[in-house]
Amino acid sequence: MSRVYNFSAGPSMLPEEVLKQAQAELLDYNGSGMSVCEMSHRSKWYMDINTEAEELLRELMGISEDYYVMFVQGGASQQFAAVPLNLLGKNKKADYCVTGNFANKAYKEALIFSDDVHIASSSKEDNYTYIPKDLDIRADAAYVHITNNNTIFGTEYHWVPDTKGVPLVSDMSSDILSHEVNVNDYDVIYAGAQKNIAPSGVTIVIAKKSLVDDPELCLPYTPTMLKWSTQGKEHSLYNTPPCFSTYMAMLVFRHLKKLGGVKAMEKYNQEKAAILYDFIDSQDFYKSPVRKEDRSLMNVPFVAPSAELNDKFVKEATANGLVSIKGHRLVGGMRASIYNAMPIEGVKKLVEFMKKFAAENK
Amino acid sequence: MSRVYNFSAGPSMLPEEVLKQAQAELLDYNGSGMSVCEMSHRSKWYMDINTEAEELLRELMGISEDYYVMFVQGGASQQFAAVPLNLLGKNKKADYCVTGNFANKAYKEALIFSDDVHIASSSKEDNYTYIPKDLDIRADAAYVHITNNNTIFGTEYHWVPDTKGVPLVSDMSSDILSHEVNVNDYDVIYAGAQKNIAPSGVTIVIAKKSLVDDPELCLPYTPTMLKWSTQGKEHSLYNTPPCFSTYMAMLVFRHLKKLGGVKAMEKYNQEKAAILYDFIDSQDFYKSPVRKEDRSLMNVPFVAPSAELNDKFVKEATANGLVSIKGHRLVGGMRASIYNAMPIEGVKKLVEFMKKFAAENK
Repeated sequence: MSRVYNFSAGPSMLPEEVLKQAQAELLDYNGSGMSVCEMSHRSKWYMDINTEAEELLRELMGISEDYYVMFVQGGASQQFAAVPLNLLGKNKKADYCVTGNFANKAYKEALIFSDDVHIASSSKEDNYTYIPKDLDIRADAAYVHITNNNTIFGTEYHWVPDTKGVPLVSDMSSDILSHEVNVNDYDVIYAGAQKNIAPSGVTIVIAKKSLVDDPELCLPYTPTMLKWSTQGKEHSLYNTPPCFSTYMAMLVFRHLKKLGGVKAMEKYNQEKAAILYDFIDSQDFYKSPVRKEDRSLMNVPFVAPSAELNDKFVKEATANGLVSIKGHRLVGGMRASIYNAMPIEGVKKLVEFMKKFAAENK
Repeated sequence: MSRVYNFSAGPSMLPEEVLKQAQAELLDYNGSGMSVCEMSHRSKWYMDINTEAEELLRELMGISEDYYVMFVQGGASQQFAAVPLNLLGKNKKADYCVTGNFANKAYKEALIFSDDVHIASSSKEDNYTYIPKDLDIRADAAYVHITNNNTIFGTEYHWVPDTKGVPLVSDMSSDILSHEVNVNDYDVIYAGAQKNIAPSGVTIVIAKKSLVDDPELCLPYTPTMLKWSTQGKEHSLYNTPPCFSTYMAMLVFRHLKKLGGVKAMEKYNQEKAAILYDFIDSQDFYKSPVRKEDRSLMNVPFVAPSAELNDKFVKEATANGLVSIKGHRLVGGMRASIYNAMPIEGVKKLVEFMKKFAAENK
């Protein structure tokens, strides 16, 4: 089969150029006579990859030396535990903005480590179709946690919450590198790589050194592997890292830089999302369940007029090379995830298909 | 450069046949139009890979349904924490056999979670050059932990310790699938994949269900991602798994099965190790620091007569396509790691080089 347009919420499309380079050097990286999958993480070959990955991410996101940058394992789900473990040592008060399924999972994981976890905002009563503007943050909370983009529900923070000095932790798994952010607005940013960056298996953590180097902030039973200060100081080489995934992240970073960096990606992503949202807003066969101002640029849920038509849509789209477009069971219908690596041609082809399907099934 | 013989202690060589297959399907897995690096872990494509990986490992090692088999993240270092977290809930007594650097790290990690961690045996006083036979196990310990093969020091348990009913936990990171084991002799087996199985980023855990399903055994502050019962019940799909590494593991399992399974690998590994050890024992230029009966089939440390000659050896070996053979700083000299995927030709070429080098530098 020829390559498809893959609208999966993650793992998701990678730039074809990157896959081709990885393919070409899979048995012999850069004249080493070895695959990246085989080389010692202490070899010069891999150390260079590790260093370049960190440096490129710092450059792309404008991350200063005030922050650690780590490539760790376990996905965002593991960071749901790492956040309270690294930050609740002095004051067990944590505030969570619950704007979706993963935000809720992060909140519930914090409850394992403290019984003083407070919901600062929630849109659960409306099936997470919007991002609450008003946050009830406790001035003495150890941190406030937000989920920057809600993969399942298709909502996104288009602003930075004012936490009035309380450290801000953001799960950017599904929108990292898709739009510009001022890293200094956050104390900790984390993200599973498998949406905008690389194959699954590597997780990015960006953490303010002055905060996470305070040994009293870390809960006493924090596993070493989950300690940000340890991983940060070791530049992700405390133990054997997920070498292939980090290498792929490095290749994607190079690719993004060549394309003009995050600013250029933001423009491209706005253009892609506009094609899809403008079409949805121009007709009444498909509907978007999300409040307009909170719509995600990355994940676009939409529904056809009936459950049968949703099923038919998914089936026929798949046959047309538009795959993994079924919506999450919590929302139903369809979801088009259009991360950085989804070409604009894929979005255009989707809209053409949507038009044809609507005409045939009115 | 042509492919080299890579004696790295891990990550390490993979079967060339497996790398070639991964290369061929890197942009289009099995007609899906997607890379394994891109596909949803909930897609039929990936679910099949996940299922086959688990089934093949069960078949290769003879693992019954009494055990969970998991493909998780974080490496053995993360399991150093998972072991006490999953087992010390009722009785905080843990016994450790300290036979090397990683065994010691596992012991130290346990001290984070309990102050009643006991050393059941240690060969530290002799720089870990042997495996102690006598174990001082407490009858009421929650478990005994051993490190089956000591990667840095080149020693290996060639027997199963009699724990008199105390659950036995074994870190088999560097010898899993290299020789036959009776899984029923162990309660928990874990192993980072990057030595005998796959690229780094995936870790195997085999855990007896009747033990780890007891909720009281789990410490109350165990992160969800580190809970064996959760990962086991979800067949490694609790969250996004390290898909590419698990896929590579599946390809390696298929390859091992084709070669005759673990029994055939054990024979091959004995043959390879004999070539190297027999040569070392037949001359007096190189020396093995390890007690003969405890020598590892996987990691073979040896030293030349001086530090200068060690350095020269490593340099010239590298120039001859025998790479990553420098010994660990805790032992010095050289170390040849000859895991499953090291061809016998690589070992023969190494011995030829050793002979030539000795003759030239006597």
